[in-house]
Amino acid sequence: MSDSAQHASPVSIGFDIGGTNLRASVVDRAGRVVDTLQEKSRRDAECMEHLIVEMTRSLQNRHQVGAVGVAVAGFLDPTCSIVQFAPHLPWRDAPLKSRLQEHLDVPVVLEHDANSAAYGEFRYGAAVGAKTWALCAIGTGIGATLMHNGEIFRGAYGIAPELGHLPVVPNGRPCACGKRGCLERYCSGTALAFGARELLESDPGTSSPLRDKPEFTGEDVMRAARAGDELALRAMGDFSDWLSIALSMVGDIFDPELIVVGGGVSANADLFLSAATQKAQKLVVGAGHRPQPLVKVAELGGDAGMIGVATLAASAAGLW
Amino acid sequence: MSDSAQHASPVSIGFDIGGTNLRASVVDRAGRVVDTLQEKSRRDAECMEHLIVEMTRSLQNRHQVGAVGVAVAGFLDPTCSIVQFAPHLPWRDAPLKSRLQEHLDVPVVLEHDANSAAYGEFRYGAAVGAKTWALCAIGTGIGATLMHNGEIFRGAYGIAPELGHLPVVPNGRPCACGKRGCLERYCSGTALAFGARELLESDPGTSSPLRDKPEFTGEDVMRAARAGDELALRAMGDFSDWLSIALSMVGDIFDPELIVVGGGVSANADLFLSAATQKAQKLVVGAGHRPQPLVKVAELGGDAGMIGVATLAASAAGLW
Amino acid sequence: MSDSAQHASPVSIGFDIGGTNLRASVVDRAGRVVDTLQEKSRRDAECMEHLIVEMTRSLQNRHQVGAVGVAVAGFLDPTCSIVQFAPHLPWRDAPLKSRLQEHLDVPVVLEHDANSAAYGEFRYGAAVGAKTWALCAIGTGIGATLMHNGEIFRGAYGIAPELGHLPVVPNGRPCACGKRGCLERYCSGTALAFGARELLESDPGTSSPLRDKPEFTGEDVMRAARAGDELALRAMGDFSDWLSIALSMVGDIFDPELIVVGGGVSANADLFLSAATQKAQKLVVGAGHRPQPLVKVAELGGDAGMIGVATLAASAAGLW
Amino acid sequence: MSDSAQHASPVSIGFDIGGTNLRASVVDRAGRVVDTLQEKSRRDAECMEHLIVEMTRSLQNRHQVGAVGVAVAGFLDPTCSIVQFAPHLPWRDAPLKSRLQEHLDVPVVLEHDANSAAYGEFRYGAAVGAKTWALCAIGTGIGATLMHNGEIFRGAYGIAPELGHLPVVPNGRPCACGKRGCLERYCSGTALAFGARELLESDPGTSSPLRDKPEFTGEDVMRAARAGDELALRAMGDFSDWLSIALSMVGDIFDPELIVVGGGVSANADLFLSAATQKAQKLVVGAGHRPQPLVKVAELGGDAGMIGVATLAASAAGLW
Repeated sequence: MSDSAQHASPVSIGFDIGGTNLRASVVDRAGRVVDTLQEKSRRDAECMEHLIVEMTRSLQNRHQVGAVGVAVAGFLDPTCSIVQFAPHLPWRDAPLKSRLQEHLDVPVVLEHDANSAAYGEFRYGAAVGAKTWALCAIGTGIGATLMHNGEIFRGAYGIAPELGHLPVVPNGRPCACGKRGCLERYCSGTALAFGARELLESDPGTSSPLRDKPEFTGEDVMRAARAGDELALRAMGDFSDWLSIALSMVGDIFDPELIVVGGGVSANADLFLSAATQKAQKLVVGAGHRPQPLVKVAELGGDAGMIGVATLAASAAGLW
Repeated sequence: MSDSAQHASPVSIGFDIGGTNLRASVVDRAGRVVDTLQEKSRRDAECMEHLIVEMTRSLQNRHQVGAVGVAVAGFLDPTCSIVQFAPHLPWRDAPLKSRLQEHLDVPVVLEHDANSAAYGEFRYGAAVGAKTWALCAIGTGIGATLMHNGEIFRGAYGIAPELGHLPVVPNGRPCACGKRGCLERYCSGTALAFGARELLESDPGTSSPLRDKPEFTGEDVMRAARAGDELALRAMGDFSDWLSIALSMVGDIFDPELIVVGGGVSANADLFLSAATQKAQKLVVGAGHRPQPLVKVAELGGDAGMIGVATLAASAAGLW
Repeated sequence: MSDSAQHASPVSIGFDIGGTNLRASVVDRAGRVVDTLQEKSRRDAECMEHLIVEMTRSLQNRHQVGAVGVAVAGFLDPTCSIVQFAPHLPWRDAPLKSRLQEHLDVPVVLEHDANSAAYGEFRYGAAVGAKTWALCAIGTGIGATLMHNGEIFRGAYGIAPELGHLPVVPNGRPCACGKRGCLERYCSGTALAFGARELLESDPGTSSPLRDKPEFTGEDVMRAARAGDELALRAMGDFSDWLSIALSMVGDIFDPELIVVGGGVSANADLFLSAATQKAQKLVVGAGHRPQPLVKVAELGGDAGMIGVATLAASAAGLW
Repeated sequence: MSDSAQHASPVSIGFDIGGTNLRASVVDRAGRVVDTLQEKSRRDAECMEHLIVEMTRSLQNRHQVGAVGVAVAGFLDPTCSIVQFAPHLPWRDAPLKSRLQEHLDVPVVLEHDANSAAYGEFRYGAAVGAKTWALCAIGTGIGATLMHNGEIFRGAYGIAPELGHLPVVPNGRPCACGKRGCLERYCSGTALAFGARELLESDPGTSSPLRDKPEFTGEDVMRAARAGDELALRAMGDFSDWLSIALSMVGDIFDPELIVVGGGVSANADLFLSAATQKAQKLVVGAGHRPQPLVKVAELGGDAGMIGVATLAASAAGLW
C-alpha cells in the first residue's frame, strides 16, 4: 500500500477490548490491517476510556481516520450504545458510546465482539456473499451470530442468539450459569481441556504429556493430539462428536446456507472439522431430503473482530 | 363493521389442507371468518387440486374474493411455490402454486401451516405489534416460527426454525427422525400421552381412568388431570417441566420479546403455562440481568392457519 | 418309571401358586415330574389353602407322598413360614406353613418361587455341581437367587438379592417401585415389549406386525424378531445390550462360576444370549485378568419351581 | 488385662502393605494394638518379603508371636495364597504365602485388605455380633465385603463383591476400568474431589479456599465444607446423594442387617452419613414394608486391616 493510497481514502479503526490487552487495528476499505497498536488493559473504566481516546489520537496522527469501532465482549443494549455487563471488563451499565463520542471527532460504533467477527467474515472472510449464515465462535465458550440479508440478527433485546447454554445433558456437567449440562460444557476449548482432565483423573495409570501440565488448555490438548498422544486423541474424539451435534443444532435452528466455525479452536480445525461436519449432516432434520449448510473455517483469525467492527463503523460513517 | 362494508371490500380465502379434512375459510380485512366450507381430503393430488378450485369457485359465488391462500403441512421450497414433501398429503415436488393459479383468476399464495398460523396471530391475535417474536405450536410435535420486523424468518432453504429435534437427552426416547432424545419426544401432546402411558405401564397397580382407554391422547391426559387423576397430574408435571426448558431454549436462541404457545396443547394452557413460564424465566441465560420474553397463549385457535394464510394472500394481492 | 419303582420310593409334591393357576407336580428322586394337577386360583386365602390340601390328598391317593413344597411369588419371612406380602395372591402376613401343616400329615416347606427354581436347576438342571452361582430369572421383572455351597443366600431378612431395582439410568423410565431408571425397566420381557412400543410410537410410519397387536408382550417381540421384523430386531438389540450389562453386574457383585438365565425370556435365549454374554465379558471388572462366569440357559423351564420346591421339601423331610 | 496376661497368651502380627509404607501391628486377643513398626515400602518383591520377615523377627524378640497375617491391597487367588495382581505393589502371580511361610516359624495368613478390615470390625468394631452384614470402604474407590454367618463371602474366584464399577450413569464420567459412569466415579473420596473441581472449573468466578489448592483431595473438600465453604457444601451434597444411592444398592443386593461405612471418607461421617442413610431408606425396594439395615461408621479406623488380619491369622492358628 502506497502512502498516497492511504491518504486518498480514509481508514477506520477497530478496537478489541480484552481483559488482558487493548488492541487497535487500522483497517482500510479492502479489509486489510495497515497498522496496529496494543496496550495493557486497565482495571478502571475511566482509564480505559482515556486510553481508547489516546490510542485513537495517536493513530489519527499517522492515518486519515474516518470512523472508530469498538468490539466489546459483553452484553450491549439493543441500540449498541451501552455496555450493560461484561464479565472481564470494568463497565456496568455504562454509556460507553457517548462517552467516547464526546472526546472523538469521528463517528464511533460499538458492537458485540462475536457480531464484529461475524461482520468481518461476512465482508472479507469466509462468509462473503452469504445470505443466511451463522458464525459459531468456539473457544472459552460458544459465541454465535446469525446474519440474514446482510443484517446481524439481534433478537428483541440484543442478546440473541445464545447457543452455549442450551441444555443437552440432563443433570450433566455443572455450568457457571447455574444450570447443568449446557452445550458449551461439552463443546468448547474449555470443554476439550476439561474432558482431557477427566480422562487423566479417571485413570492415574495412563501416561500422557498432558499429565505434566497442571493447567493445560484446549490448545494444549490439540497440540498433544497432533503429536499422537492417545489420551488427547480420545478427548478430541469426544469434542468432535459434540461439535457435530452443535453444528446440526445450528442447521436445525437457522437452516443457514453456511456455518463458519471460528474462535480459538478453529486454528486446529484440520484436526476435526471435516469429520464433525460429516457426522452433523446425518443429524439435521430431514437429512437426505434437504440442502445442507456448508461448513467453513473462519478466515480472519484473531483480527476478525477488529476488521469487522472497523468496517461496521466505516459503513455507519458512510466511508465505504 | 357493517354489512355494507363487508360487501364493499373484497375478502380472501384461506385453505387448511389436512390429512383428513380440507377446510376453507373466507376471511375479511378484520381477520374475521365470515364463511367456511369443509370437504373430506382426497388421496390423489389431482383430485385435491380440483377440489380446492371447486371450493374456491363455490365461495366466489357468495363473496367478492380477492385472493386465495393455502396453508400446507409440509416442506415448501424457499419461494413457497412447490410442495416438496408433506407426510400426510399426496404431493411430492409438486408445483402446487402454479397448478392452482392456472385455474383461478385471483392471486394464489402458498405457505407452511405453522408460518400461516404465526402470521394470523401476528395480524389479529396474540402477537399483534410484536417486533421479534416466536410461535411455538405444540401438538403432535413442535412447530416453530420466528417473525422479525413483520417478516417470517425462513432460513436459507425455507425450513427454519426446526426446534422439535434438538437433542436434549443423550440416548433418550427414540424418535421417528432416527435420532434419540429429541425435544419433541418430551415436550408435545404426543409426549404427554407417551409419558402417561409410561407411568401406567411402569406400575400396573395404579388406578387411573386413562387405563381404560387403549389409545388415549395428550388431550385425554389433560382432561384426566383436570378431573384430579393423580397419574395424569404426574404426567402433566413432567410435561410442564419440559415445556419450561423448551421456552427457555426459545428465549436463548431468539431473544424474542414474546413467545406465543399454540398448537393442540394450548387449549389447556391454564393447566400448565403459568408454572412453566415461571420456571423458564430462571433457565434463560443471564436470568435476572436481562428482559424476559412475555409468554402468551395463541388466540385464534384452530382457525389461525386459515386466517393467517388468507391474510398473507390478501397482503400479496394488495387487498389490505 | 414302573409302578413298583413308584411305590418303592416316596415322592414329593411341588406346588406353584400363581395369580391365575394353582399347579401341583409330583416329583420323584430323579427330579422327574411323574404326575400333575391344575386348578384355577381362588381370590380368597382360605379357599386357596383348602384347595392346596384337597389337591395334596387327591395326589396322595395315587402316590406315596413324603413331603409337600409350596413355591410362592412373594416376600416370605426369613424362616420361610409366613407369607408377608404377595402382589397377586390373597395372603398378607399369613402363617401359611403352619396352616397347611395343620391339615397335612407330611412335612410342608415354603419357599420363594425364584429360590425354588434355582434349587431345581441346582439339583437337576443347568447348575448341577455349581459351588457359587446365580440364577437370573428374567420375565416380567428380574428375579435373582445366589447359591453358595449348596445353600440359598437369603440376606438378613429373606429378601436378598434384589437386582431388578438397581438404578442404572438417572431419571430414566418410571418404575412401579416409585423410583426411575431401575434395571428391570430396561432388562426384562416387559422392558422388551416396552422398548418395541416406544419404537413404534416414535415412528408412526414404520410397518411392523407388532403394530396390529394392541397388547403385545416380550414374547411377541421375540417371535417377530425371529420372523425378521426390523423393528423387533432393533428392540431385541437394545434388550440384549442391557442384558449384557445385567450379566456383568451379576459377575461383579457375586463373582460366580456360573450364571443361569431363566424366566420367560429364556425360551428364546438362542436369539440373544450368546451375543449378550460376549459383551458382558468385556464389562466385568478386571476383564482379561480374571476367570469369567459361564452363562447358561435354565434347563427345567416352567417346571423348575415345582421341581425345586418339591426337592427342598423332600430334603427337609429326609426323603432324598 | 494385666501385663502378665499379655505375656501368658500369645499375640498375632498384622501387616498392612501399602504403596508407601509397610506397617506391622502386634494385636492381642482383645483386639488391641500393643506394639507397632513401620518401614518404607520397597519397589522390589524380594526386598519386601525380606523386610516382612525381618520386621516379624524383630517383633518376635519382644512378643510371644503365635501367628502372622498380611493384608494385601490386590487380587488374591481364592485360597488366599497367591498375590495375582496388586496395582501399587511389586508382586505379580507371586506365591507370597509360601515364600513368607518358608522363613517364618509361625502360621502365615494372607487376606485382601478390605476383607481384613471387615474381619476387624466384625471381631472388635462396629459389626460385632452381626450375622449378615457388609462393609463399604469408601476412599479412593469403593471396597466392599460381605460377611455371612462369620464367613467372608469371596465368590467363586475370590473377587466378590465388586461394587465400585456397577454402571449408574450411561455414558457418564470416564473410569480407569475403561467403562464410563461407574459408581465409584460418583461415590468415593476421589469423586468428591472431582465433583468439587468440576464445580470450580465450571464457574471461574466462585471463590472458595479450594481454588488455591492445585491438588486437593476429598478430605480437603470435607474440611472446607466443615468451615462453611459453599462450593464444598454443594460438592458434599452431591456426594451424599450418591452415597444414599450406593447404600440402597447394598441394601437391595445383600439385604444385610448392618452396613458399616469405612474407608477414608468415614472420618468425616458426621457431615453426611445420617442424611445419606435417611435418603437410602426410601430407595431400597419395598421401603416401608421390610426391615432396613442399620448403617454405622467403622470403629477401628486405619488399624482395622491390621487388627483384622492378625485376628484371622490367630484364628487360623487356633490361638483365639
